[in-house]
Amino acid sequence: MNHKSLTEHVKSQVNPRPEDLHLFTSKLREVTVAKGKFLLYPNTYVKHEYFVVKGCLTAYYLDKKGNKNIVQFAIENWWLGDFDAFYNGVPSKLYIEALEDSTLLAINHDDLQRLLEEAPIFERYFRLLVTSAFISLRKRILSSLGKTVKERYLEFCESYPNIEGRVPNYQIANYLGISGESLSRTRRKLRALKKA
Amino acid sequence: MNHKSLTEHVKSQVNPRPEDLHLFTSKLREVTVAKGKFLLYPNTYVKHEYFVVKGCLTAYYLDKKGNKNIVQFAIENWWLGDFDAFYNGVPSKLYIEALEDSTLLAINHDDLQRLLEEAPIFERYFRLLVTSAFISLRKRILSSLGKTVKERYLEFCESYPNIEGRVPNYQIANYLGISGESLSRTRRKLRALKKA
Repeated sequence: MNHKSLTEHVKSQVNPRPEDLHLFTSKLREVTVAKGKFLLYPNTYVKHEYFVVKGCLTAYYLDKKGNKNIVQFAIENWWLGDFDAFYNGVPSKLYIEALEDSTLLAINHDDLQRLLEEAPIFERYFRLLVTSAFISLRKRILSSLGKTVKERYLEFCESYPNIEGRVPNYQIANYLGISGESLSRTRRKLRALKKA
Repeated sequence: MNHKSLTEHVKSQVNPRPEDLHLFTSKLREVTVAKGKFLLYPNTYVKHEYFVVKGCLTAYYLDKKGNKNIVQFAIENWWLGDFDAFYNGVPSKLYIEALEDSTLLAINHDDLQRLLEEAPIFERYFRLLVTSAFISLRKRILSSLGKTVKERYLEFCESYPNIEGRVPNYQIANYLGISGESLSRTRRKLRALKKA
């Protein structure tokens, strides 16, 4: 099992002792999900959170009319899960589907609680991550209000570097709350600007 | 200065030592904002986060067309601020306005960082708060997709107990992304159900 990307990610945020890192990695389990397969379904009890080592996944919600609403993409070095279900013990609401063959590291809820007790440096690690996720989510809401399609697309590319070409156009459009045509037009304009 | 509601709130989340609480409260400054006055404007540098001791405030964003979009309400025992500006040192985007005469406790950014170093129990306190804020925000997004106005309003009442009567109808409607008429209709129906 390869923990390198996770330990690098932890070190990019906080300053753990080697024994803290060892404790963390000892609690992880490797999970693989083939392209097009599901990591999670709605109405299940969720015992794990996941760190993406390799691959690309999407979390989405089907509304009552059956419309798909993309909540999150995850690529390398992102944490992913149905956090309401994981932290509050309620049934899950999200589908999580692999858009590429993906390798993840899973941590179990009780193991995570024990880790936080035994190595409090991870309180800080997860506080920093969730604070930044909260700020991004708020930005995404504000973003859908006052900004042009071009601005929203550029922000998306900043949040998800190198995702272009890995996720179908219509899924990015869905996430941004715009039409596929509008996204294609914006991309063409940006490419023309780059060449000019 | 009255720290009782904050220390109670901390104790409802984590198990601090008396000296941790003392350290926290020693770093706070009391701030009052009269009804209709502003705690924060856009395009400023934000040095504080705020805990509401008494009162009711709203954080909102004006989009390019001048439309007001309510991001958050805060009543007793809520933390409030422009978190992107506070944590990332970028100019603020939000107005924060008092809807009632309000008393808050302010903590300065550098003092908070020192507190987290000196009393790591607050890493846990703030991790728990921001995790729950993140989950609520995600729910609010999902909520605006698949749910009826009635369901959304009931969820709102659960998140903000006792806010009814303190915030004008049209502001709650704005927050929920629905029309004032639709909100009034829903409230009338719910009242009729209660009486029946």
